[in-house]
Amino acid sequence: MPSSTHNKQSIDTLIHAKWIARVNIDEPLIDHTIVVNKGIIVALLPQNQAKQHYQAENNFQLDHHIVTPGLINSHGHAAMTLFRGYADDLPLMTWLNDYIWPNESRWLSAEFTRVGSELAIAEMIRSGTTCFSDNYFYSLDVGKAAHTAGIRAQLCPTILNMKTPWANSVDDYIAKAEDSHHAFKASPLINSILGPHSPYALSDTELNKVVTKAEQLNCMIQMHVHETAQEISHSLEQYYCRPLARLDRVGMLTNTLQAVHMTQLTEHEIDLIAERDVKVVHCPESNLKLASGFCPVGALRAKGVTLALGTDGAASNNDLDMIGEMRTASMLAKAVAADATELNATESLRMATLEGAKCMGLDDIIGTIEVGKQADLCATALNELANLPVYHPVSQLIYTASRDQVSHVWVAGRILLKNKELLTIDCQKLTHDVQVWHNKLQT
Amino acid sequence: MPSSTHNKQSIDTLIHAKWIARVNIDEPLIDHTIVVNKGIIVALLPQNQAKQHYQAENNFQLDHHIVTPGLINSHGHAAMTLFRGYADDLPLMTWLNDYIWPNESRWLSAEFTRVGSELAIAEMIRSGTTCFSDNYFYSLDVGKAAHTAGIRAQLCPTILNMKTPWANSVDDYIAKAEDSHHAFKASPLINSILGPHSPYALSDTELNKVVTKAEQLNCMIQMHVHETAQEISHSLEQYYCRPLARLDRVGMLTNTLQAVHMTQLTEHEIDLIAERDVKVVHCPESNLKLASGFCPVGALRAKGVTLALGTDGAASNNDLDMIGEMRTASMLAKAVAADATELNATESLRMATLEGAKCMGLDDIIGTIEVGKQADLCATALNELANLPVYHPVSQLIYTASRDQVSHVWVAGRILLKNKELLTIDCQKLTHDVQVWHNKLQT
Repeated sequence: MPSSTHNKQSIDTLIHAKWIARVNIDEPLIDHTIVVNKGIIVALLPQNQAKQHYQAENNFQLDHHIVTPGLINSHGHAAMTLFRGYADDLPLMTWLNDYIWPNESRWLSAEFTRVGSELAIAEMIRSGTTCFSDNYFYSLDVGKAAHTAGIRAQLCPTILNMKTPWANSVDDYIAKAEDSHHAFKASPLINSILGPHSPYALSDTELNKVVTKAEQLNCMIQMHVHETAQEISHSLEQYYCRPLARLDRVGMLTNTLQAVHMTQLTEHEIDLIAERDVKVVHCPESNLKLASGFCPVGALRAKGVTLALGTDGAASNNDLDMIGEMRTASMLAKAVAADATELNATESLRMATLEGAKCMGLDDIIGTIEVGKQADLCATALNELANLPVYHPVSQLIYTASRDQVSHVWVAGRILLKNKELLTIDCQKLTHDVQVWHNKLQT
Repeated sequence: MPSSTHNKQSIDTLIHAKWIARVNIDEPLIDHTIVVNKGIIVALLPQNQAKQHYQAENNFQLDHHIVTPGLINSHGHAAMTLFRGYADDLPLMTWLNDYIWPNESRWLSAEFTRVGSELAIAEMIRSGTTCFSDNYFYSLDVGKAAHTAGIRAQLCPTILNMKTPWANSVDDYIAKAEDSHHAFKASPLINSILGPHSPYALSDTELNKVVTKAEQLNCMIQMHVHETAQEISHSLEQYYCRPLARLDRVGMLTNTLQAVHMTQLTEHEIDLIAERDVKVVHCPESNLKLASGFCPVGALRAKGVTLALGTDGAASNNDLDMIGEMRTASMLAKAVAADATELNATESLRMATLEGAKCMGLDDIIGTIEVGKQADLCATALNELANLPVYHPVSQLIYTASRDQVSHVWVAGRILLKNKELLTIDCQKLTHDVQVWHNKLQT
């Protein structure tokens, strides 16, 4: 054995990449290596130096790839993937009242949630997502599916004043959310917060209960807020104020609120949420497809609001592809701001990584490629004809890459996708299970 | 040999597909076969009947696929693919003045155009496009590249009052366009019309020359029209009227005009173009990315305007992916109309096929899967996890499929893409040629 190998430090994993987009620093590294040990990024250095200094069990030579932090999908309803394409091209309320809710009350169960979540998780890992937020029922089962697949998750068990097979009353939903919170307290990858559905689905008293419980558990709250113009007008009719004013009254407008959608915002409201450090989760494709409205991304960014990105559920998007979502976010932000410089590729990548981590309070551990952070990583090949030529790799990732070019995904140093192959999910069994539900839902 | 085979009719190709979206009829066929002979669709029938009645040299068993008419990209600038990602996230005029035009005047040549067009054509075939419209210089070379690759094309040689390495004056551009028109007169796949750049790039006298030449050649005209709000205000300043009023004055507002972009339209203008049967080409992703404005798709459709779909050039999109473009078109049309039922999946597919054919005056020969039409076809597999479950195959194609799932493409019965492999393009040589230009453009 040549003497040089004797002096090499043994670590778990070496990822040698053509480009590394760290996100905390805009300029991509070229021909560098990410050194990972025990799930943590321990060094970032030129490939030749890395090869001199380290020896690893697992070596990845990614000569045509850009490695980014794993993508963070900050809002969705994983199990609803079983409703993907079930009722497209319909208005939100027809879609909910005539298709989604009747089917949920008929079919919702732990098994439905397990299969739907596993399908969503498979699609998410396959397309570079390493952390997702899930607003749904049966959160223990969603958490189990995430744990089994090895993906990071923030669970937001739904709380609403409508009976479902999962819970009978707001108190019941809150109790189940509390169970879920405690169940995942020790998990390194999963945390469970509170997911009140929306201002219109809960009375002031019920919103108060949610705030009190969140304070008791010391956890965040994720909620659909100002999703449509109708939501605003109904609130004005019923409560004589806009939904955000109600949330302010019950003490919910704080830095622990993740407000999803926010397509309807006055200048005053933008100032208010910026001042309170309320987090906003933007779901551009869902907002387009349901004709909900346009989130004022440029105006929110100008005020320094933390702005994360989510796909929403596959029943309204219809994919869970964060690469496509970043592209749509950038393109749409420009058109809405009437400014082609708005939300450039680098900023869109930041929304889907560091801003997502900030939104969930996880930015100490994920969201950038930095020494000391968890190795949640995504590698995407940029050598398809549709990507050439490559002048700016981040630009090519956002504007020209497709989800199918994601080749490798790691969560906390563990590899979940290797050469496009899912390692922690039995795809054949999953496809069969999905078919069973497909048949049921068609009856 | 069993007697049954004796009675079978010999034809070129049998395509057995899980689903066939004919476009002229909304309901997809299930488990049917497209029978192709000498480039023409000669029958459409159930698979078992097709297997009884026909024997073919080429058999394709596509058990997880939807076959649609080949996608028609009704507006683009193929050679500009070499500028893909070169100058992203910039306003239109900065992008043109500081990046695109200086580079074009420095590098534009037959060789630049050949390589850029070939790259574009490779990407287009790979993603299901069988016919493209190309608005650029060196149209003979673009046509040659299309001919070699076997793809169908409408060439629209650019005419503008700016000197380029290709031509010196408007008269020179018109003469070159006329040459191109005559050169492809006998081609079964390629036709060459006139491509005046825009109302702002030509004086009234020059526009008149274009109209006269189009009448002489009996050909259509494609032009960028009402792309941005600035175009309108500049026209009001300079000509005291809106651009469409100028085009009306010179006699250009007829059924032979393909007006591209059209983001700025009054109600009266929509009525006018509907009355005159002016064709509109919608380029949603380019309009978003350059923050040009929103084409009123719903309002145009309500008046019965022929509305085709284009990607625009890869320098401003940045891909030539018509599946993604259909998805964006549907999602954006809903948001702009504030109506989630606007431009459903079936209608979006129609825009990218039959409406494109109508726009170019080719709807007698392409745009639907019908007996007697040319076999321009695209097959897309829908068995990825990201497509499941499949309730409505057309909906899944538009809202969940990615370009990478396109497996087979035929133009006039000739197969150009087989199991995702390009048969008429040398990808290795192409990649090398692109790299050479990449290096030049970076100097």
